Amino acid sequence: MKRVLICFGYKGTKYSGYQKQPSKITVQELLESAIQKVTNEKTTIYSSGRTDAGVHAIKQYAHFDTNSNVSVQKLPQAINTYLPDDIRVFEVKIVDESFHARFNVKKKTYIYVFSTCNTPSPLFYDMVTPLKYNLDMQKVNDAIKLIKGKHNFKAFCSSGTSAKDFDREIFDIQVINQSNYLVFKVTGNGFLYNMVRIIVGTLVDVGRGKIQLKNIEEMFKTGDRSLGGKTLPAQGLYLFDIEY
Amino acid sequence: MKRVLICFGYKGTKYSGYQKQPSKITVQELLESAIQKVTNEKTTIYSSGRTDAGVHAIKQYAHFDTNSNVSVQKLPQAINTYLPDDIRVFEVKIVDESFHARFNVKKKTYIYVFSTCNTPSPLFYDMVTPLKYNLDMQKVNDAIKLIKGKHNFKAFCSSGTSAKDFDREIFDIQVINQSNYLVFKVTGNGFLYNMVRIIVGTLVDVGRGKIQLKNIEEMFKTGDRSLGGKTLPAQGLYLFDIEY
Repeated sequence: MKRVLICFGYKGTKYSGYQKQPSKITVQELLESAIQKVTNEKTTIYSSGRTDAGVHAIKQYAHFDTNSNVSVQKLPQAINTYLPDDIRVFEVKIVDESFHARFNVKKKTYIYVFSTCNTPSPLFYDMVTPLKYNLDMQKVNDAIKLIKGKHNFKAFCSSGTSAKDFDREIFDIQVINQSNYLVFKVTGNGFLYNMVRIIVGTLVDVGRGKIQLKNIEEMFKTGDRSLGGKTLPAQGLYLFDIEY
Repeated sequence: MKRVLICFGYKGTKYSGYQKQPSKITVQELLESAIQKVTNEKTTIYSSGRTDAGVHAIKQYAHFDTNSNVSVQKLPQAINTYLPDDIRVFEVKIVDESFHARFNVKKKTYIYVFSTCNTPSPLFYDMVTPLKYNLDMQKVNDAIKLIKGKHNFKAFCSSGTSAKDFDREIFDIQVINQSNYLVFKVTGNGFLYNMVRIIVGTLVDVGRGKIQLKNIEEMFKTGDRSLGGKTLPAQGLYLFDIEY
């Protein structure tokens, strides 16, 4: 038996999220089915975590165990043969049997991509979110300072979560302003349900003056979701990278 | 009555091409219907030309006549309100009543985009064509020299065309090689059915040694389509710009 770690990416538009669900088309289901066709074994894959419907992944990781003799070098191409073009395996390597793609995560990075031009390109309509407001970047940066660090992020989590522990650490939030795009890059040790979309939604609402900085302090104190900005749509969100 | 010229773009993936057809969803139909909702008049639009199913447009132009008093400045946003996000009007201006979006075209430019990396990004699966071969760029450039200029392009036209005159002029073909993308930019006074996809398909086949340069000379002499490269898929093709 060997444990295999795969690095893959996907465009989330057509899928009901990453995680397998009865009678829905998900990335996990298509990946497991493609791997099974290559290895001829029933396979369950364990990813770094799920992503929601419509969310994309530039780099996502998952592991699975196999007794098959298929060469690791040939695995990506072999698996890709059985996958639709909007899911691609980039790399495969053997890892120690004690490695776990979810429990060994040290850092996760997401990006959220806004289009800031008046008429966003129709070519990327399902890959960016239009931003119609000018943001006061001084306020956004002040809000970022408040959000960075270890906090109870209950107020940055949508209802319907199964989480019991809301403590997370945000290591960094970078804002990249390039031509007609504004990108928020958020790195943390883990994220609650919709947490990136609520963090960035709150930063935008601070930047346009709809939410005050003191609301963020209040969110951490009270855990009250209603004090934050709105949950942004899935189309602008990308799982960017995982650090083990 | 005033004549209005609109500049617009679209992602062609979901549409049965630009031109209106019974019981199919087309860009023209959606644009006419959106314009009618704004002007309250029955409207026919005349574009610079059609694009096939799955082909995208970065810049496309069309004109229509209207008696409505809607301000030209407000037209793009008003029309966009009634359009899906994968079709966008960028600009609108009043033109002379003698102007015709099709008959006044001086130059048309298309680009064809290949992804050259081993595993193309799943994010752009419906916007680029994977290229699995290394091309001999010297041969490609020699072939470009043969194709540029005025010729009878019958051998570069798919069957099913209604064209009777196959004479066209190719002003320029540029090849741009940037990071993991190879882009062919083709400018001419007009294009036959599938002509760009056959020109670029032939250039690729010359570059990988499957077609000889003398085939191209033979194509012009005989008009024999079977001597050329294959018709490339629609997903990599973009109408790039029109010059009037």
